[in-house]
Formats: sequence, C-alpha cells, structure tokens
Amino acid sequence: MLYRSDFSGNRANSCSTGWHSASIDLARLLGYKLGMSDKLNFHMASEDFRRHGHAVVDWIANYHQKIESFPVLSQVHPGEIRALLPVDPPVQGEDFQEILGDVDRLIMPGITHWQSPNFFAFFPSNNSGPAVLGELLSAGLGVQGMLWATSPACTELETHVLDWLVDMLGLPAKFKSGSAGGGVIQDTASSASLCALLAARERATNYQSNERGCDGHLIAYASTQAHSSIEKAIKITGMGRQNLRLVEVDDRFALRPELLAQQIERDRQAGLIPCFVCATVGTTSSNAMDPLQEIGRICRKAGIWLHVDAAMSGTAALCPEYRHLQDGVEFADSYCFNPHKWMFTNFDCDCFYVADREALIKTLSVTPEYLRNRATEGGAVFDYRDWHIPLGRRFRALKLWFVIRHYGVEGLRHHVRRQVGLAQEFAKWVESSEKFRLVVPPPLNLVCFRHLAGDEINRKLLDRLNRSGRLYLTHTTLGGQYTLRFCVGQSQTEHRHVEQAWNRIRQTAAELEAEIATERP
Amino acid sequence: MLYRSDFSGNRANSCSTGWHSASIDLARLLGYKLGMSDKLNFHMASEDFRRHGHAVVDWIANYHQKIESFPVLSQVHPGEIRALLPVDPPVQGEDFQEILGDVDRLIMPGITHWQSPNFFAFFPSNNSGPAVLGELLSAGLGVQGMLWATSPACTELETHVLDWLVDMLGLPAKFKSGSAGGGVIQDTASSASLCALLAARERATNYQSNERGCDGHLIAYASTQAHSSIEKAIKITGMGRQNLRLVEVDDRFALRPELLAQQIERDRQAGLIPCFVCATVGTTSSNAMDPLQEIGRICRKAGIWLHVDAAMSGTAALCPEYRHLQDGVEFADSYCFNPHKWMFTNFDCDCFYVADREALIKTLSVTPEYLRNRATEGGAVFDYRDWHIPLGRRFRALKLWFVIRHYGVEGLRHHVRRQVGLAQEFAKWVESSEKFRLVVPPPLNLVCFRHLAGDEINRKLLDRLNRSGRLYLTHTTLGGQYTLRFCVGQSQTEHRHVEQAWNRIRQTAAELEAEIATERP
Repeated sequence: MLYRSDFSGNRANSCSTGWHSASIDLARLLGYKLGMSDKLNFHMASEDFRRHGHAVVDWIANYHQKIESFPVLSQVHPGEIRALLPVDPPVQGEDFQEILGDVDRLIMPGITHWQSPNFFAFFPSNNSGPAVLGELLSAGLGVQGMLWATSPACTELETHVLDWLVDMLGLPAKFKSGSAGGGVIQDTASSASLCALLAARERATNYQSNERGCDGHLIAYASTQAHSSIEKAIKITGMGRQNLRLVEVDDRFALRPELLAQQIERDRQAGLIPCFVCATVGTTSSNAMDPLQEIGRICRKAGIWLHVDAAMSGTAALCPEYRHLQDGVEFADSYCFNPHKWMFTNFDCDCFYVADREALIKTLSVTPEYLRNRATEGGAVFDYRDWHIPLGRRFRALKLWFVIRHYGVEGLRHHVRRQVGLAQEFAKWVESSEKFRLVVPPPLNLVCFRHLAGDEINRKLLDRLNRSGRLYLTHTTLGGQYTLRFCVGQSQTEHRHVEQAWNRIRQTAAELEAEIATERP
Repeated sequence: MLYRSDFSGNRANSCSTGWHSASIDLARLLGYKLGMSDKLNFHMASEDFRRHGHAVVDWIANYHQKIESFPVLSQVHPGEIRALLPVDPPVQGEDFQEILGDVDRLIMPGITHWQSPNFFAFFPSNNSGPAVLGELLSAGLGVQGMLWATSPACTELETHVLDWLVDMLGLPAKFKSGSAGGGVIQDTASSASLCALLAARERATNYQSNERGCDGHLIAYASTQAHSSIEKAIKITGMGRQNLRLVEVDDRFALRPELLAQQIERDRQAGLIPCFVCATVGTTSSNAMDPLQEIGRICRKAGIWLHVDAAMSGTAALCPEYRHLQDGVEFADSYCFNPHKWMFTNFDCDCFYVADREALIKTLSVTPEYLRNRATEGGAVFDYRDWHIPLGRRFRALKLWFVIRHYGVEGLRHHVRRQVGLAQEFAKWVESSEKFRLVVPPPLNLVCFRHLAGDEINRKLLDRLNRSGRLYLTHTTLGGQYTLRFCVGQSQTEHRHVEQAWNRIRQTAAELEAEIATERP
C-alpha cells in the first residue's frame, strides 16, 4: 500500500509552517499525486494511533481469553519462523492492520505461552492488566529517568514505591530511602547481583579495584545451588571464577553455614580477602531457602557483604506467615526480589535494595560534563543511573505503582497464598501417589518430584508432556537425580489447571510404563 | 472503593470449577455481601482491561496532542512529587480510573517531556506510534526470550530484524547471522560496550580472565570524548580505570589515530597487553566522528578488538549520503547503535553486533541444568541469554519490526534527513549571528554553539531557557569552554519548533546582555 495515511489526518503536518510546506501544499491543492519522495510525514497519525491502539488492546484481551487453545510450548523447529519472513526489509511502509495480522500468522506459532495457566516451567514471569497498562503508559510518555532532573516523577515514584515494598515485605528499615540505604529497579536479578558484587568488591578494597583493577585475592561465596548469574557476575567483575567458592548444601539444598564459616577461615589464613556472600531465598533448582540468620551472623562477624537473592520467593513475604523463610534478612547489605516473576508485574522489574547507598554510588558513578545539572549538584536527589549498569532507564515504577494500587496489599497476598495452596495440594497428590515421590518438601509454590522408575522415564515423561502442548514443565538435577519441577505462579492458574496437569502427568507416565513393559519381553 | 469489579465480570473466575467456588457461588446466589477476605479474584477482568486499555491509548494520544502545553523541563523541586503520594501502600485495591486520574494529578508535574518537539537536550530518545504498540504487544504476550525454546519467535524475529538492519545501514556482512557473527538487542549502549569489552578481555587472555580474574596488564583505549560508559565498563570488568588510555583528539574532537598508535606501542614495550579500542561515531559531547579507517587499520595490525560505539549517529547510516561518517566500520569487531535514540523506537533498544559471536558466547555463557534443553543442545539456535548480562529478556524485536514495517526504509530515511536538515539550518543561523558562534561544525543533527560573551552568560542563558519551560537544551564543555548543545531528534520536531527555539535563544540572550550592561555602570 503506497499511502498509509493522507496528509489531512496529520496534526503535526497540518500545523507546520516550515521550509517544506509551500510546494507540497501547492501540489496537494492541485490534487497532484505525490511521488514517494515528496511524502512529508510518515509518523502514525493521532487518529490512527487510537484506532490501532484499541485494536492491540483488544488483541491482547482476546489472546488471554483463548490462551489455553495454544500449545504451551511452541512446537516449531529451529529456523521455521525466520523462513516465513521476507529476506529484505520493506522499502515502503506497510499498513498497521497487515502488520498485526502477521503477528497471528507469523509470530504466534513461535510463541511459548508464558502467561498460559498451564505454564508450570522454570519460574513464572507473570503479568496482569494493570502492569501491561503501566508499561504502555511508560512507553507513551517515553521519558528517561537517568537523572532526577530528566523526569523527577520517574525517580521519586520509584523511590516511593520501593519504600512501600520494604514495608509490604517486612524488610529492614535500613533499605528505605530515609535511611542510608534505598531501593532501585533493575532489569533482572542477574544485574542486581552484579551490582551488589561490584559494591562489595569496592568496599573490600577501599574503592581501589575500580581504579587499579582486580588483584585476584578477593573471594566470593554462594551455595552450589545459587543462581548461574552469580558465576556470571564473578567472571564479569574480573574476580575470576576460581575465586568463587560454592559451598555444599544440606538435604534440603540449603547452604550449610558451618561449611561457609570454615571456608572463610581457610581463605583468610591463605591470605585471601573474603568479600561477598550470596544467600538465596528460593533457589532456582529446588526453591531452597538458605539460612539467613546464621549466614548473616558469619558475614557480620567477618565484615563480608551479604547479598540476599530472593528473586523468586521474596514476593512470598507479602504474606506474614511466609516471612520466616527469610528470617535474618536484617543482616543483608543488599537484597533483591523480582515483581516480574511472581508479583503480576510484567518483565522487566527487579527491586534491588542496599543498606549503604553510598557504597553502590561510589562504585558505579562516573559524571561527565554533559550530565552535570543543578539538582544533582544540590545533593538532594537520587540519580538512578549511578545505581546500575545502564545510563538510560525507562519509567518502570509506573507499572509497579499500578499493580500495587490495583490489587492492594490484600489482593496481592490473596493470589500468592492461593498459588502456594495449589502447589501444596499438588505436592500432596504426589506424596500419596505410588508412582511418584517428592524429591524435597516444597516450601512454597515449586514442587520438585520424580517418577520412581529412574531417570530415563522422567526424561521421557517431561518430553512427552511438553510435546503434547497441554502443559509445560521443566527439569533439574537434585542429588544427582533427574527431577521434574512444577511451579505454580501464572496469574490465571486455577485449581482445574493444576488438577488437569496432575492427571495428565499420571496418564502419560502410565502410558510410558506400559510401553517400557512391552519393550522388555 | 471497596469492590473494584463484581465477580460476574471475571472470566477466569466464572469458568473456574475449583476448590473455592462452591461456597462463594452460594453466597453470590444468596446476594450476600462478601467480606474482603472472601474475594476470589483481584485480577483485572477482560472487559475492564479493554475499557481501561482504550482509555490509556487515548490518554497517550491526547498527551501527544497537547504536549507543547507542558513545560518541557519539569519545574518541580526535589521531593515535591513524593510529598503528594500517600505514605503507606493501599491495603485494598483502587479503581483504575482513579489511578489514571492520579497520573495527571500527581505524576505529570514531575515529567520532563522527552517527546516534546521542543526537547533539544542530551540526545533524543524518540518514540512513535508503532513502537509504543509493539511494546504494548510485547507486554501483553509476556514471553521470555532467554532461550530459543522459551519463545522461538522472540529469538528468530530478533535475529532477522537485526540482519535487516545490517543491510539498511550498510554495515559489513560479517555482522549478519549467516556469517560467524550476529546481532542482539541490548538495553543500552552502556551494556553493549561492557559486553564488547568483556569479550575483548577474554579473547586477549585466551578466555582465562573469566577463570583466574583480571591481572592488571590489559589495556583499553578510547578518545577523551568517549562516552562515560566506557570508563564505567573498565571499572566493572576489573581491568581498572588506570588501564584505560584516553587518547587526545583533534580540533573536531575526533580521536587522533597517530597518538593511539604511539600509545599502543608504548604500552606494548612496557609489557602491557593492549586489547580493546572503542571508537565513537557521534560522541555525546559534540557528535564527533572518530576516523574508523585509520583506527581500524591500527587495531587490525595490533590484533586489538575494535568496538564502534555508534549509539547516537549509527541511525544516520540509513541514508547512503551519511555513511561516509563511518567509513572503516568493516574493521570493527563489534558495533552498536540505538534505535531508541533516533530511530523512533521507544527505550530500551540498542542493537549490538559482533563479528565473532563465539567470542561473545564463550565469554558470557554459564549453563546450569535447569536451562538445558533439546534445542540448545542441537546447536542450531541462538540462546540470547549468552549474548548479554541479564538472563531474562523481553520481546523487544517486536517494536523494532513494527517500526521498520510501518515507516519502511524510505520513511525512516525521510525523517532522519529532515532532522539533519533542521539542525543544519539552525547551525546556519548561529553562523550568521553576531552574538553566537559554532564551537564545531555539526556533522549531523547536534549543534554545539555558544554566546561570544563568555561562559557566564552561556550558563545563565541555558538556565533561563530551561526554566521558561518552552524548550530544553543541555550543555557540555569543549576546549575548556562552556558550550550549548542543540540536538534535533524528537519525532514531532518541525521547522517551526527550531525557529521558535532560535528566536527564544536570541531574545533571552539579548535580555541577559541588557541586564549585564545595567549591572556594570
């Protein structure tokens, strides 16, 4: 389609009085057909934005209404989506309706439906109406929050909402902005852990690693079950993977604090500098809870930075009855949790807190002339660019604010409790089954279980379930055994989905058992 | 408001057949008023999402129509926005209309209007209708693209559109996915530069810095005008700021290659390991263009990783007539540019290319059991988590695809040319003025200029202009002199805005001149 919108529909153009308008207006008045190169404005006109915007909103609502009709795990083969796309980019613009139509035609077959109520894989990344609309508003406003001055509301709402969350989660007051600490939104817990590690590295070397480089004497600690991003961060910071000590865990896959203490002592005696411990509230593999109290005391005694990675399970602390899982969080120098996992806030939104914001800012701040401004120099504001890796940042607090206000604390608690309840019920079914067993008691909404007949049947079971398209779950290895993970955390997951999943797991396992019996005469 | 929506409006609830429904349905039938704790579902109902979604779309359209009525730079004082917000989070959910109303009441006074056509500050961060709708769709789909398998379309569309852009910008074919290289979307150029530096660090040490830590012998180079993120990256990687050589520039603020060559030689002779050069296409301070040809030859000869940071000005290469500004880009090992700056794609969206993707992947990959999957092990797919710092990633290719298809190459070129034309016209006015002069000839759409009467009047001029709320520009220091920056890059900036800005700058300067004359009797 050659002309997407006519000139009259365009406000910016119609009120333009500039250098280009005379000849074109003449052409228009004379009814000339303009060649492409004469077209003045390719932007989407306001009325078109409204029309197409409503269509996209409806598309999303329709999608969520029919989401159960799609295979949860995309069934395409590598390269299948690309093969449908034109080799060359379009020279001329295309109609938006056509583009939206192509989403259905070309993109949807390649979507794995994370928002499906039958998605039980990995950890969730749930979203919600208010979050999506907050993201939309943020995109429409299009402001940058790198400095306070570049949009004060972007910074102040973020500080405010992150203070709210300290209270909502029962976190220590030292993480609030009125103290020496404060919170900031990061994209992911990977980035938050990296920033925590950097601040720890600098604090331990009197801010000289930044200047002189890393000297290979700094040591970091986490359990063998800590997230892969800790290893990634150690590599990024130049501390070296060999300087990451992975401490063994107990039978619930939680870090053994006595081994941590021993390792720290050994390292000290070897002339090394222990500087960072990452404890996890809800490991990715099995949702294990590291004992923060004991780890915290060890860190405090040894003057080591304690980072608490509660990316997944921090959200549970909305409910007072689950807060005991992070008893000892008051020892933490930094803490993060992901509303984009389990708090109905679309990705990306990780909340990262530090007790000593100066340590973080001194670590990450670089101020060229072109970023200097009156507000920053007045010292009364936060410039969040100094709290993370990127300079630019979008207005993510908006969606978090929308979510908290839409649900209220009570609504958030309700859904968290309900999902934990569903997972616990699933765990009871596993426990009472003759064919399956729990690999570890589930503390919250992740159930780790396996078929009793060995790794091979579990592998086949996972594969067949996921290929069915009716549900999606993933696996891990615990104690050397192939283990299925079943996590309840998508916004729309109800009892019937969990029940159907369990029935399907049992049926599929029975089919596999029968097949194996036939194979062995 | 106690009850946000009644139960009948809620799809998820109405089709629920689960454990909770019997007693509640009975209560409903009997017309009981339910206590809060009995409420079943706090999610936004589908019909409400449609209604509120349309309202947000219209809000954005209205905002853009009246955007010129707001002061461009927010005029609030530190703490003013926070003071309007309730100290405590809401226990009960609130009505969405009320929340949206609060955006106008509480948030808008604290917004600096980056999308205003009178925004000439920093570098732009422009957006557009198709981009905003792409972001909306991405939020609504809510998929994770960390692995190919977690949404094949998210990965494949990204690879495809980034291949398109190689052709659209006339970049070397080695950056396409069919070669040994490829492209990936990063949040910002800061992160892209960090990843480039990490890959360079590893390549130079046979991937041993990751393992053993950084040894303080690795040296990186950039001009004195390179972006602050390069210094930040050097610190993050543990290479140490003292190992970053900032090479002097010529009278157009471009890196002097002969000095680079000399410095590399000196470092080699001192037993150090030169491993990374960052050249900039369009520095932030003055839009200077480093000579890529000469730098590239030096890097190739010395076996040094060349990263080209074209964050701002890479977009200009859409137009063949501007491509000469990055002649020599074929020497680059990595390259990035930001569609979220000047290509009508809302933040965040940085396109990062490498010639040798294995170097990047070997540097950043860590694979725990719970991320293993058939597609990854088949080796035929990209898992983009290994191409950047975060693990999770949203579907950002969607908005880029929408933008390219909506505008077509021709539409994008048109607007880039037009904005360069407006900036060049502004520069002519400056040149022909008796009070102002250009500090450096503007290569594209950033004009650096100053009033002839010294730093003080320029400082006051900037301050008074920005306080007027009628336009927003920022400053830098060039050759020791306080310099005003005027960048044309917002989507809706037309001739009249540039003309009004120039008139206002001259008038305000005249007022200041008069005031100064009065002060000096």
